[in-house]
This record gives sequence, structure tokens and C-alpha cells, in this order.
Amino acid sequence: MKIICNQKILAHKISIVQKAINGKTTLELLKGILLTAKEGTLNLTGYDLEIGIDTHIQAEIVEEGEIVINARLFGDIIRKLPDTFVEIETDSDNNVYINCLNSRFKIKGDSAVEYPRLPDVNENDLYNIPQDLLKNMIKQTVFAISQDQTKPILMGELLEIVGGNISLVAIDGYRLAVRSSEIDNMSNNTKVIIPGKTLHDVNGLLSSEDDAIQLGFDEKNAIFIINETKIITRLLDGEFIDYKKLLPREYGVRAKVNTKELLNSIERASLLSQSEKNNLIKLSIRDNSIAITSNTEKGNVYEEVSIELEGDYLDIAFNSRYFLDALKVIDSEEIFIEFTTNVNPCIIKPVDGTKYTYLLLPVRISSNI
Amino acid sequence: MKIICNQKILAHKISIVQKAINGKTTLELLKGILLTAKEGTLNLTGYDLEIGIDTHIQAEIVEEGEIVINARLFGDIIRKLPDTFVEIETDSDNNVYINCLNSRFKIKGDSAVEYPRLPDVNENDLYNIPQDLLKNMIKQTVFAISQDQTKPILMGELLEIVGGNISLVAIDGYRLAVRSSEIDNMSNNTKVIIPGKTLHDVNGLLSSEDDAIQLGFDEKNAIFIINETKIITRLLDGEFIDYKKLLPREYGVRAKVNTKELLNSIERASLLSQSEKNNLIKLSIRDNSIAITSNTEKGNVYEEVSIELEGDYLDIAFNSRYFLDALKVIDSEEIFIEFTTNVNPCIIKPVDGTKYTYLLLPVRISSNI
Repeated sequence: MKIICNQKILAHKISIVQKAINGKTTLELLKGILLTAKEGTLNLTGYDLEIGIDTHIQAEIVEEGEIVINARLFGDIIRKLPDTFVEIETDSDNNVYINCLNSRFKIKGDSAVEYPRLPDVNENDLYNIPQDLLKNMIKQTVFAISQDQTKPILMGELLEIVGGNISLVAIDGYRLAVRSSEIDNMSNNTKVIIPGKTLHDVNGLLSSEDDAIQLGFDEKNAIFIINETKIITRLLDGEFIDYKKLLPREYGVRAKVNTKELLNSIERASLLSQSEKNNLIKLSIRDNSIAITSNTEKGNVYEEVSIELEGDYLDIAFNSRYFLDALKVIDSEEIFIEFTTNVNPCIIKPVDGTKYTYLLLPVRISSNI
Repeated sequence: MKIICNQKILAHKISIVQKAINGKTTLELLKGILLTAKEGTLNLTGYDLEIGIDTHIQAEIVEEGEIVINARLFGDIIRKLPDTFVEIETDSDNNVYINCLNSRFKIKGDSAVEYPRLPDVNENDLYNIPQDLLKNMIKQTVFAISQDQTKPILMGELLEIVGGNISLVAIDGYRLAVRSSEIDNMSNNTKVIIPGKTLHDVNGLLSSEDDAIQLGFDEKNAIFIINETKIITRLLDGEFIDYKKLLPREYGVRAKVNTKELLNSIERASLLSQSEKNNLIKLSIRDNSIAITSNTEKGNVYEEVSIELEGDYLDIAFNSRYFLDALKVIDSEEIFIEFTTNVNPCIIKPVDGTKYTYLLLPVRISSNI
């Protein structure tokens, strides 16, 4: 193999495929990036057997070929080279020669023969979705994915496409986040579970532009196509929780409140309880305001935020961290908080109609807190 | 005590005095900031018994008084409050009430009676130095301070004022960095050893402006006055190494080289040796170029940088990290590197006359590397 390509673009592409490489793997080959030089294109692949990322750049191909190079070392070298053309050449012993102006590297590569190939996913039947929308959907749900290894299915998110509507759903034992949106060109219905790690990786590759990216699924895999980059991920096996059953149909008390004001007040109220076990804050919902209080060894705090109330007064307590997680990712200016009783979950949703629902379990409190 | 002051300014001042507070101290009182309200001014003090920082802000003093408040909690609370006026009040049980718009905190403070007072340092006999110059002098030397606890004297820097010249000197077992400058109004000669931690703290408070700050010394302490902030530090006891004796008087080989080009080449050359013990790189000095090579398990690298040479050819090896430390902090475009033999220290100094000298020991090499 012998190719010549641009340093800056190559460095950028290496950083993309590096996301799929697990530095802790014991398989030396999987610490590498597969380079494939063919027909005017240099292809780069990283694959940890669960997530694979594949991308390419234009290159002058002097001699076609394949090689595997340790991703970290290769990335470090290419990133440090000057912004000009880089020549990469291999010999029959899998040595890799990297030349660029006055720099000459010789490093050991690995034969590409044993490198595992990414699964083929049918790319004929793809869904289009604006990348800023998908980025936002991931941001608003991904923190509610369970970290509990004994419930592997909840370490991913349900991606559901039904009747022109796409939803992402994450649940751990304490809260549930659902973000939905209409999208065009939805041909048929789908229900898959995407691993949390994949969503983090995909999120890292999405920009805040509104141009479309493509999604596709088969029985075992999902594919995300972002410009010339493909991310292929194994799906999680099993049945996701029927989350719709968990959402209460009615509420007795509803407060309309400014998102940012509530966020700031709860952040302050939780300062005293930060080192305690459950970050307990108490909400006292009254006619025109919520009082947020916390009472700990360090002292106590009282915060007040204006609300518009429908329904009765209510005292209810929460783990402030779980409350804040949602408030931090809601871009809408105002939210509704809907309650039934102080031992039933509450629902947070934007007033502006954004299809986002966050369900949160309260903490049971004794009356004297 | 009862005072009213501006949230933003108070938050900024807290972050300044927090630098003097060692969160790991077992003395609860020293985790606190001493607040003193008197005559239109709120004074803030942090002190770990080695370094003390003292600053103040204008405040409306409703009732004079003193209190000690846990620095971290106080800082967290004040920083999270809205940008408006904050009221701070204490009661006779050392409870502290912090009120700001709709936020009301009550936290436990401590009596100020037991809080240690900062030593008095004579402020009549001060030296002036532009803060950007002092910042640069610290930056160019502080990394060469020893981390070896068995040589406590080398865990500080020599600050020497002789004949209108100020120098900062740091030495560990492998290199020596000296930065000097002329300054005005130097009344008498001084030789003190400032702890490394103090220099880091002072550096963090200096800006890149060229307005003067003040320095003063007595037998046991030094004082740095940066606007309304005073940093008082204990000096290190003992005799510093006579560093001038270590600097070679002559050189046999001198190379003039572009600082940035050499930095980039050595950074690349050291990529392969990063995980090895001594980051070994070899320099081969020839007529018009230095070849920088490194040969490790991972492979080898050859870099070439243009030079202007005086003297003979030389092969010499270094720990690349120590070489890079100096190149990173030299702002001058070109440097001289002066050698005697390949087992004697080399000297790096800027071509433009900046009074900076970096001495570096080579690594002995066998001939076949």
C-alpha cells in the first residue's frame, strides 16, 4: 500500500473512527485502525465488535492495499505533523512508513487479513432525520439510561418509529425520559434498542446543523450515516419496558413555571445536600409559588419560585439531581410540572409543545422534614 | 455582623482567597474564610499557616463584626446567586444568614476569635515589577522546581535581587532555569527562597497587563501586593545552591535554531518513546541541521531541523520531556543551544537577548543507539 493524502483531513478522520476503538481491549488487532486504499479512496475503520465506524477520505493511491495501525499511535503521529501532504507506505513485513516534510516514521503495523469486517446492514431502506433534532433527542434522554449491569436492556434506549413519529426512550429505576418528533418518509414501523455507548458516540459525531442524516435497521444491527461516516452498532436483545403504561393519564395538580428560574433555585437548594445520600429537596406547592427547601447538617435553605397553579396545595420531595438532569436539557422557556399525589411520579413537560416527557419518582418524606 | 454587597464581586473575591485554603487540612477553622466587616469594607482572608491571602470589597456595613465561613460552601452559594445585592448577617450563635432576592440560606459559621492572623510584613520598603513580567518569569522557571521532598529547599525558587537585577531560579536534579530582568527602584539586595506553591498561587492571580505590582520581604516572609489583594508567604529556610557555579562558562558547539520548529520536531520524535522510562531522543548535530531520532519497540523516527552551526559535529541524547519543558515557555523566535561535550550539560537561551538560561543534563548513550 502507498498513498498520499492531506494531514488535517486524515487527522480528523482518525479521531472519528477512534470513537469505536476500546483502548482496554486485550485483542491487539482491535486497538488498530484498518486502512484500506482502493480506487482513489483511503478507507478507515474502527471496530470493537459491538460498534463499528467507517469513514473515508480522498487520497492519491500509488499502490492499493490494506494495513492495520495502532489507533492511538497513528492518531498521535498524524495530529502532530504539519498541515501538508502525508505519504503512508507499507512493506511486505507490515512495517508502516509515514513521511511528511522533514519527518520520517517507521512503525509496526499488523496484517489486515485477520481484522474483523463490519456487518452489512441494508442501506436501501433508510429514514432521514435532521442531525440537530437527533442530537437534541439524544441529549434529552441519554442521561436517564440505567447504569445497572444487571438490567442490560435498560442500558440502552428504545428507538421506536410508529406512524410517522420517532421516539427515544430511556428508563432507570427512578425516572423515564421520552423525546418524540414527527419525521418524513417513514416507510414502516420499527422498534429497536440502541446501546447507550452507541448513542454517546453518535451524539459526538452529530453537529447542530439541520441537514439530514440517515438511519437504518435490520434484525441485529442499526446504521447511522452522517455524511461519509457510517456507524454500525449491534442492537440490544430483548423486550423493552412498556413505558406508556408507566405514564399517568391524569394529574390533580399542575404548576407552570419558568425553566431557568426553577433550575437555578433547585441548584442552590441542593448545595447543602450535595454530599448527602439522596440530595433531598422538598417542594411546597402553593397558590403563586413553589417553596424549595432543604435541611441538612450544614444548615438550611429556602428558595421561592413563582408559578401558576391548577389544583390543590401539595408537599413533595425529590432527589434534586434527578430533577436537575431534566431541567438542564429542556430548552423551552416554561414547563408544566404535573402531580397526582406526593407518593406518585410527577411529570415534567415543556409548555411550548415540544414532545418531551420526563417522569420522576418522588422520595417519601416524613411530615416533619 | 450585617453587610450588603455585590454578588459578582464577592464571588470573585472568594475565588481569590480560596487559593490559600487547603481543603485537606484537618483543622476545620482553616477550611474557612475569615470575613471582617469594618468601616465600609468587607475583608476576606484565607490562610493555611504557610500562605495567606487577604483582599477586600466595598460593602454597606450595617453592623460591624467578624465570622469564619466554610470556604467551599460559601463560595458555592455565592457563585450560584443571581447578579444583584447579597445580604450577609450573623447571630450570636455564629449562624450565618445569606439572603438574596428569593433565596434564604442559614449555615453554621465559626467564631473568628480563634482564627490565626496573618504575619505583619513591612510594607514601607517595596519593589515594583510589571505583573506580566513577573508572570512570565514564573512561567519560564516554575516547572523546574524539584518535587523531591527530601530536598525541601529545591521545592522553592530562589528570588535574588542584586544591583538592579531580579532573578528567579529553579533547580531539580536534571535541569536549572534562570530568568532575570532589570527593574527600577531597587533599593537594596535580597536573596530569599519562595515556596513553589506560592509561585503557582501568585501566577494564578497575575494578569497579562503591564501595570506594576509590589513585592516586599522580611526575614521570614514575603508579600506580593496585586491591586487590593495581598499574598503573604512564609519563606523557605536554608541556603540555595550556588547556581552560577553550575553554568558552564564556555561552549565548543553552538546551534542557532527556530524555537517552534525544534519544539514540533522533538514533540513528534518523542511520540514513540512516551511510555518508556526516560523519553530518550538523540540529537545529531551536523553542518546545517540537527537530526532528532528515537528508536523504540514501537518503531523509529527521524526528524530534521535546519540550524546554523558554530563548532564541531556532536551526538548527544536527552530526556525529551525536559527539553520540551523549556521550548514550550520560550516566546523568542530563535534560540541558541550551546554544548561542550555529550556528557556535559547543554544551555538553551533565546537569541533575542531575553535574560533566560536553561541548563539541561544529557543522558549518557552507548554508541549503537
